[in-house]
Amino acid sequence: MAKRNEEFVTHLADRSEDFSQWYTDLVLKTDLADYSPVRGCMVIKPYGYGIWENIQHELDARFKATGHKNAYFPMFIPESLLNKEAEHVEGFAPEVLWVTKGGNEELAERLVVRPTSETIICSMYSKWVQSYRDLPLLYNQWCNVVRWEKTTRPFLRSAEFLWQEGHTIHATREEAEEETQRMLKVYAEFCENVLAMPVVSGVKTKNEKFAGAEDTYSIEALMQDGKALQAGTSHFLGQHFSKVFDIKFLDKDSQLKYCWQTSWGVSTRLIGGLIMVHADERGLVLPPKVAPEQVHIIPIAMHKGGVLEKATELYDALKAAGIRVVLNDDDSQSPGYKFNDCEMKGIPVRLELGPRDIESSKCVLVRRDTMEKIDVSLDNIAQTVLTLLDDIQSNMLKKALKHREEHTFVAKDRKEFDEALEKKGFVKAMWCGCPECEAKIKEETGATIRNIPFEQENVSDKCVYCGKEAKHMVYIARAY
Amino acid sequence: MAKRNEEFVTHLADRSEDFSQWYTDLVLKTDLADYSPVRGCMVIKPYGYGIWENIQHELDARFKATGHKNAYFPMFIPESLLNKEAEHVEGFAPEVLWVTKGGNEELAERLVVRPTSETIICSMYSKWVQSYRDLPLLYNQWCNVVRWEKTTRPFLRSAEFLWQEGHTIHATREEAEEETQRMLKVYAEFCENVLAMPVVSGVKTKNEKFAGAEDTYSIEALMQDGKALQAGTSHFLGQHFSKVFDIKFLDKDSQLKYCWQTSWGVSTRLIGGLIMVHADERGLVLPPKVAPEQVHIIPIAMHKGGVLEKATELYDALKAAGIRVVLNDDDSQSPGYKFNDCEMKGIPVRLELGPRDIESSKCVLVRRDTMEKIDVSLDNIAQTVLTLLDDIQSNMLKKALKHREEHTFVAKDRKEFDEALEKKGFVKAMWCGCPECEAKIKEETGATIRNIPFEQENVSDKCVYCGKEAKHMVYIARAY
Repeated sequence: MAKRNEEFVTHLADRSEDFSQWYTDLVLKTDLADYSPVRGCMVIKPYGYGIWENIQHELDARFKATGHKNAYFPMFIPESLLNKEAEHVEGFAPEVLWVTKGGNEELAERLVVRPTSETIICSMYSKWVQSYRDLPLLYNQWCNVVRWEKTTRPFLRSAEFLWQEGHTIHATREEAEEETQRMLKVYAEFCENVLAMPVVSGVKTKNEKFAGAEDTYSIEALMQDGKALQAGTSHFLGQHFSKVFDIKFLDKDSQLKYCWQTSWGVSTRLIGGLIMVHADERGLVLPPKVAPEQVHIIPIAMHKGGVLEKATELYDALKAAGIRVVLNDDDSQSPGYKFNDCEMKGIPVRLELGPRDIESSKCVLVRRDTMEKIDVSLDNIAQTVLTLLDDIQSNMLKKALKHREEHTFVAKDRKEFDEALEKKGFVKAMWCGCPECEAKIKEETGATIRNIPFEQENVSDKCVYCGKEAKHMVYIARAY
Repeated sequence: MAKRNEEFVTHLADRSEDFSQWYTDLVLKTDLADYSPVRGCMVIKPYGYGIWENIQHELDARFKATGHKNAYFPMFIPESLLNKEAEHVEGFAPEVLWVTKGGNEELAERLVVRPTSETIICSMYSKWVQSYRDLPLLYNQWCNVVRWEKTTRPFLRSAEFLWQEGHTIHATREEAEEETQRMLKVYAEFCENVLAMPVVSGVKTKNEKFAGAEDTYSIEALMQDGKALQAGTSHFLGQHFSKVFDIKFLDKDSQLKYCWQTSWGVSTRLIGGLIMVHADERGLVLPPKVAPEQVHIIPIAMHKGGVLEKATELYDALKAAGIRVVLNDDDSQSPGYKFNDCEMKGIPVRLELGPRDIESSKCVLVRRDTMEKIDVSLDNIAQTVLTLLDDIQSNMLKKALKHREEHTFVAKDRKEFDEALEKKGFVKAMWCGCPECEAKIKEETGATIRNIPFEQENVSDKCVYCGKEAKHMVYIARAY
């Protein structure tokens, strides 16, 4: 089990002074990820990958429950395919990697490493779909993608990252629009109930939409430093790709029609979000539902008679109840060291058990979210721990919601807007809908319109930037 | 549910006349995979990917039960890293893809798309390991790899494929050797109990070992056409990589030592093996443990009162018992069409239910492995089906074992060897151990030494090729 060096459970940068360094310290010192010898590419270490496996497990069940099936498409896209949809290639070409040689030979046609898979998947869909009976196709793939960006940070923006991408085609616009919304809701529900990370659902402005989409919907989460994180997107692609890739079907009315299409994705970026929403000055705080290790049992005075035996008994009981539990019986570490390690790694519950506890048939549970210590009976310990894990999960969501509420500000005019931005957080403001105001806001403040939320409020009648008639309420923030 | 066109459930090439075309027909016509616009790269369609998900699920549980954790390493390897181990680069360089440009810029250093990950992983291990307390590291990753080969076939040999690669480092040679053997055993047990595919375990000759390994162990399966398929390998890497990548640790005795290393992998190739071991002239035959759909319920006279209701009731009962079941209630297809579809797709059990069955509270089960029809009571149907699935699973292994026994021949001399090869199958023969005889056999017959099995028999005293003193019994066959 844990065999970390002393120096690893010390020194985390001050969260309030240097949020960015605090984040990097957490990622590296809790063994979530490491830098690699490949520019901008990270290694996801087992502790970080364990979180990703739990995220995959939870999301995959939701995808299957909504009728989707997994498939796998090639990771390479021939240049001619990428070039078919003009807006799409313009959006992605500056940041793709080019494969030009195989062994010692130049390739007849250059290949890009997929930055996203619309084009390669469309080329197959056009082959597979003939009749309305073949529709809808509801496919998803779990894979790696690459965007060769200049500035990278582990999980938040890395050249290669892991994600899932759903790609569906439908007979009607309505069905495709419904699908786009359905998957955004799946993401929002997942973020709130599994990651304990509340999100604002809405539509992106035309300027911020996916290259090739008709509309892009997003979920936006607020980090503890007041910056926003786009946590997932769902695109209504209309018929843009189906017209270019000739994805046609013979409808019931014997007419040949172009399909309607969606795509949607979330990535390992969610792990970055998790950290920045929940962690504190002591280390990570992981929601029980995705924590690779939910409980650490730490025996005190481990070599006294009966302690390890009882600890093992508790381990077996928790494991049998489906709890992800670790018994830390490493005798090269002191209990105090192990407590620190638990705090740093964000283990939701640590269970301390010593000779006196055993005498009185109790143990101590320490919950990571509040650091509260609770004496509990050893009778029915598995149920006690399960209930506590549930409580931690819901308390973490409450806490994150409270933080968001306290850091969401309303701005009626430019002055209020500047003041709100200073306070760091989401700014709810009205927008006239014109791209010029949007661009000016970004240029002058570095903040961007995150989305036009589904839940509209009328906070004023005038655009926060130009003062002209307002069309939408928007969320504005600086963002990752 | 199934909405396949009529033409798809017809025309499979004759297995005995054109095994290769029969294989390709199966892959394409049962929707396991399709060709893509990228040379040598396949699309794994949902039905094929469903098999892979079940393989992953079963193997991953075995890896975790033996103490391994999953991680993720970058898919790109800088040229300088690949070049470090001479034998390794020589083995892989001719078939790697080179990434040379990012966006519009030439990369400062070329990258290869991983053909396997020893080098990138070693570069991290050298950073992570300092003390004997850090050992062993028992990591695995599920990922895509690329080998840019000239001749490709879906699942059997494709430019990009999916696999898992375990990479472990240890303090001692003994531990690493044990690990190498342990994982080969895990593979062999998995192949027999999950894929119903018996394998021969043994060590590869020096000539056939992995580029950079000290020893390569393999499991070899026999296909229905008498050709062998290498289904998995486990490599004892010795200290080759740890010396080149400087993976050293301070041992308990305060000495700095190089680590001992293993790597092991299986891939989507297993799906090709599954097909070629079990399928028949009617279509696929899938072992229940990996079949994405274990039972198809096919209602007869579907529109008569009560039939669909009863079918739905059975569906719910089977589903609740954890059976992967499909109710095919598509009214555009006749029952006969659905029967064909079941046979083609290798669904282990089809359940037929009509009005008269319901009257007498029974249904008909048809098992795909033997095509036997069985009348069974509807009482306790889930248990009946579970028992039948178990029986199919073990019967398929028995059948495959029988085929292998009937197609394994002993050859004491060159004449017997040529005769045995004519009969198509495994040839058990003695070998003097010299690479020249091995090369000559390959050159003259196209057959190769598959491995030197752990279970040795003394079938003769003399080398089957040169007649000199024999050292080992080997399995020889033409292979995929």
